[in-house]
Amino acid sequence: MTDEHYMNLALELAKQGEGQTRANPLVGAVVVKDGQIVGMGAHLKYGEAHAEVHAIQMAGRHAEGAVIYVTLEPCSHYGKTPPCAELIIRSGLKRAVVAAEDPNPLVSGRGISMLKEAGIEVATGVLKEQAEELNEKFMHFMRTGMPYVTLKAAVSLDDKTATVTGDSKWITSKEARLDAHAYRKNHQSILVGVGTIKADDPSLTCRLPDTAHQPVRVILDTNLTIPPGAKVIHDKAAPTWIYAGANADPETVRSLEDKGVRVTVLDTETISVRDVLLHLAENGITSVYVEGGSTVHASFVKERLYQEIIFYLAPKLIGGLSSPSAISGEGFQSMKDVPLLRFTSITKIGRDLKLSAKPLTE
Amino acid sequence: MTDEHYMNLALELAKQGEGQTRANPLVGAVVVKDGQIVGMGAHLKYGEAHAEVHAIQMAGRHAEGAVIYVTLEPCSHYGKTPPCAELIIRSGLKRAVVAAEDPNPLVSGRGISMLKEAGIEVATGVLKEQAEELNEKFMHFMRTGMPYVTLKAAVSLDDKTATVTGDSKWITSKEARLDAHAYRKNHQSILVGVGTIKADDPSLTCRLPDTAHQPVRVILDTNLTIPPGAKVIHDKAAPTWIYAGANADPETVRSLEDKGVRVTVLDTETISVRDVLLHLAENGITSVYVEGGSTVHASFVKERLYQEIIFYLAPKLIGGLSSPSAISGEGFQSMKDVPLLRFTSITKIGRDLKLSAKPLTE
Repeated sequence: MTDEHYMNLALELAKQGEGQTRANPLVGAVVVKDGQIVGMGAHLKYGEAHAEVHAIQMAGRHAEGAVIYVTLEPCSHYGKTPPCAELIIRSGLKRAVVAAEDPNPLVSGRGISMLKEAGIEVATGVLKEQAEELNEKFMHFMRTGMPYVTLKAAVSLDDKTATVTGDSKWITSKEARLDAHAYRKNHQSILVGVGTIKADDPSLTCRLPDTAHQPVRVILDTNLTIPPGAKVIHDKAAPTWIYAGANADPETVRSLEDKGVRVTVLDTETISVRDVLLHLAENGITSVYVEGGSTVHASFVKERLYQEIIFYLAPKLIGGLSSPSAISGEGFQSMKDVPLLRFTSITKIGRDLKLSAKPLTE
Repeated sequence: MTDEHYMNLALELAKQGEGQTRANPLVGAVVVKDGQIVGMGAHLKYGEAHAEVHAIQMAGRHAEGAVIYVTLEPCSHYGKTPPCAELIIRSGLKRAVVAAEDPNPLVSGRGISMLKEAGIEVATGVLKEQAEELNEKFMHFMRTGMPYVTLKAAVSLDDKTATVTGDSKWITSKEARLDAHAYRKNHQSILVGVGTIKADDPSLTCRLPDTAHQPVRVILDTNLTIPPGAKVIHDKAAPTWIYAGANADPETVRSLEDKGVRVTVLDTETISVRDVLLHLAENGITSVYVEGGSTVHASFVKERLYQEIIFYLAPKLIGGLSSPSAISGEGFQSMKDVPLLRFTSITKIGRDLKLSAKPLTE
């Protein structure tokens, strides 16, 4: 069997932890001795054992002289668990095959160096692309220090999010709405503008049965005009964080805080989405699912602060000069300023289309 | 060999006449005697021989006792050529296999009856669906008496046709623009609003090398404000027909007619696209390719007068509350009034996507 074969298995194992590891990456590991698989592991829960630990434990005495396949460079530091590189050395493995290096520029390569210094033969880059894609949100966060941002919209073929009278129920099919909902599970936060709260009073939770923990609900609300009766304020179904502009009324801030809402008043009168993302990153949020409305989307588009676009397109033409669209705001002035994306996937979901696109330079 | 095998060949032959038969349908015919193909034909030129004539001619003396496969019911009337049903009878064929019946409700089935009455064995419906699709514009026109309407737009992923400043060069790629251009060839007319003429001064001709005849250029111009210097007025590259409202200035009408433009002043102050389509149908136009702008598209959408939608989607987000979209107008008020379409094809063209959709009830 080739290295690719075992690494593929390690990737499959890694995927099983999806939606369970919070800010941690998905990692899988396989231990092979004399052509026989003797250990398999994956990182399954935030704060618990890493993939290598499970796999080496399963291998037991067979670990000595064996080869370990791991989808991400073994860690070299003491975090919530001791460093995996040390465990590999201590367990007497003779060879380590690594798919992707640690994306954190501060520690990248250190785990591999530790192994090499201990005389272990190391091969890197096996199925690297697949391994990086598996953890693209984590990779982005570690490389840039900014959360991975997904902009989502559900629109008619002519990009309306409602009719001229505001009727929006429903543009896309049940299947598409369920698919869009599933994304809440694999992002650490859901972000909307206060307009969306006022219009729909959504609960912004993931109601799929196997949701381990709810994403943080992030509301952009410059002047703190959110209705006190909004579900996100009082339902306690998930943490709610509100960002406000510098002129927000301190009284309202306190009253919201009394209800358990975390309010961050920014230094500027208007909200800069870049500042919000930086603050979210500092507070451990590595991914943001932006569900609108159109001015919020426009801010992210204008600042080019997004890694992925997901448009659900219903086969309908709504029309209307003043019907709301997915992206409003100022927009770009000139075609030459408009960034080029690339379509990364095109899927039929029920009667609708799901189009995913990413910036060309990513 | 099965009937389907020969009918498939007849369909292939029929396709070779694409873009050459004007308002006439594409038709193919194959004559088979004792398991050998003895004749093949297609209708290739408007006003010239029908498929059956070519095929029977090629078969010569072998036609007697042979089977003819024809993609459309043989005609039973004297048009520009004598009826094909008579020719089949006269040539002594013993069996006729027909894919689609004549869509004209006034004559449908007559050709088949003539054959049967003459003692010829007739089978119908073989590859009927493919045969009807091949001539869907013609079929629609014959069944409804209205031209087949295709609405086309080239937009960004967020359905903008230009930036807020009006910059629209270019949203879609060269490949997509060329593909959109090719549709001019297989429609009998191209329709735009006068706003498009004022904004872009397009020539609205098909500049592909093998264009047999140019589609009619149809301009909707309620108050006849078209600039006298517009290319469509003076370039003589194709016929130009202008539709105006009842209040159009007779002086301007005359001046346009002097330049060779055909002007139709409607009975109503505003232009009803239904009236325009009826008038086009009466004047032998069986298909209309609507290239915009957004209020023209909106009229067709509102009146549900379209058989096909083609959207070219560029992987770009332009944004802007006041950026122009593909479809404006009044729009539908309520989601329940919005007709449901179905996506009929999704194609990647260069970096862009081409989405086709048709009304569900068609």
